[in-house]
Amino acid sequence: MPTENAGVNERLFKYISDTIAITPFYQLLTIHLQKLAPGYAEVWVTPVREHTNPLGLIHGGLIMALADAAMGNAIRTLGINGVTVDCSTSFLSAASPGRALTAQGSVIKAGNKMIFTRAQVVDQEKVIAEVKGTFFNTGIIEL
Amino acid sequence: MPTENAGVNERLFKYISDTIAITPFYQLLTIHLQKLAPGYAEVWVTPVREHTNPLGLIHGGLIMALADAAMGNAIRTLGINGVTVDCSTSFLSAASPGRALTAQGSVIKAGNKMIFTRAQVVDQEKVIAEVKGTFFNTGIIEL
Amino acid sequence: MPTENAGVNERLFKYISDTIAITPFYQLLTIHLQKLAPGYAEVWVTPVREHTNPLGLIHGGLIMALADAAMGNAIRTLGINGVTVDCSTSFLSAASPGRALTAQGSVIKAGNKMIFTRAQVVDQEKVIAEVKGTFFNTGIIEL
Amino acid sequence: MPTENAGVNERLFKYISDTIAITPFYQLLTIHLQKLAPGYAEVWVTPVREHTNPLGLIHGGLIMALADAAMGNAIRTLGINGVTVDCSTSFLSAASPGRALTAQGSVIKAGNKMIFTRAQVVDQEKVIAEVKGTFFNTGIIEL
Repeated sequence: MPTENAGVNERLFKYISDTIAITPFYQLLTIHLQKLAPGYAEVWVTPVREHTNPLGLIHGGLIMALADAAMGNAIRTLGINGVTVDCSTSFLSAASPGRALTAQGSVIKAGNKMIFTRAQVVDQEKVIAEVKGTFFNTGIIEL
Repeated sequence: MPTENAGVNERLFKYISDTIAITPFYQLLTIHLQKLAPGYAEVWVTPVREHTNPLGLIHGGLIMALADAAMGNAIRTLGINGVTVDCSTSFLSAASPGRALTAQGSVIKAGNKMIFTRAQVVDQEKVIAEVKGTFFNTGIIEL
Repeated sequence: MPTENAGVNERLFKYISDTIAITPFYQLLTIHLQKLAPGYAEVWVTPVREHTNPLGLIHGGLIMALADAAMGNAIRTLGINGVTVDCSTSFLSAASPGRALTAQGSVIKAGNKMIFTRAQVVDQEKVIAEVKGTFFNTGIIEL
Repeated sequence: MPTENAGVNERLFKYISDTIAITPFYQLLTIHLQKLAPGYAEVWVTPVREHTNPLGLIHGGLIMALADAAMGNAIRTLGINGVTVDCSTSFLSAASPGRALTAQGSVIKAGNKMIFTRAQVVDQEKVIAEVKGTFFNTGIIEL
């Protein structure tokens, strides 16, 4: 799936795309970038058997990792880096293998110290998780 | 590392151990069981390069998955299953590759409907994350 | 301030309005109803000196109570009652005496067992808090 | 009930006690100090009719305010001030008028920037709420 840039500075877009592509944990989980806009990031994964629990449902850990990726990269579109301080996830529906999951992360407020974000994880039909993340601002991205 | 049973019924201990060993997502992340006691579970992982972000630190998604595994299996030691409803994680310190991480999960209250748990994720030296999880009781485990 | 009904059944609207008006804790904190719509509730308070901490800022407890009121009454507009299971609040900005605070609560998903909601607390200029609440469905409201 | 000092510097203990006694929001809710120790604070309230919802149960807002008070003052025993950034509460049991509620707050880690705490709210018989709070360190207390 080609990635979409909806208004982020080209050099910053390339930096974030490249960083996501070479992140070892995203490679292990097969998390990919879909779209970036100022203060917004969308990432996706097609869950497979490797992501399941013994009931055949997608493990919550994959969903929390996907949401964290969306929120952390939404912050990077503002030219700053953040480290996760708090992440609170509500699991609304179970996710199943083969149905692509997308996490849509948005920055609510980016302060000099604390950055507040939220994300929804959805499949084609329903909301899977509602997530709230607080990050600490670790400074501007040097390109 | 051999696993320790500190008071759980033998058939239930074997059921939980076997279930953890064949869970695809735990295999992908190399999460292993360390210890079970009534209302308590310890699981561990040795983080490697595949678990890192571009800064070389361990991704928060691994830590949240590990904590969820500890809390969910702490519930199973009581002979019941639960599905995660809410999971709230505070990240106290960064984790690094090569330093084993252990998640210690405890049941605070197991009701007929809601089950409340907490977990700490630690390495040999410090607390990495403090986690609070709420589960919905999906019924007794049939052995 | 007159209250607004944007689509809730009249008997249900009256029931919820009356209930809010006689709730002792809302009277103590001076929390009032502003608007109801299906799956949505707005409540407000004008913070005064009694709501402050020693720095003269509004105490977080008032803000959490206001958000909980918005989320719980958003659920009631669907003709069901819920009890709070989990409430997670991020404090984005400080609130000050004399500036009215409004909490806007929305139901994200109302299941037979779990109900998921969120709320924002705002003053006239900025977001004060972002809140996520999970409730247990205790059954339909008998009018 | 007399307050107990279990190891906090006398001037700091007096400063914290006096501050709690004159905090308008604590006066409105009748929240009192019970005990301070390094990194630990206990506060209490005897819930009355003014703290109830229409079902006659204690409103969750009182419980969240009490927990926030315990965590914020646990931080002050270390000679520093903090402002609440995130507060996550799980409601384990309902609380009733006339049964005193105590919140026991502990500092898990006090960093230069972020401070991590937890609290339990209990009545004489059971755990009412489990709470996790993250604060931003606003600097040392000048006595």
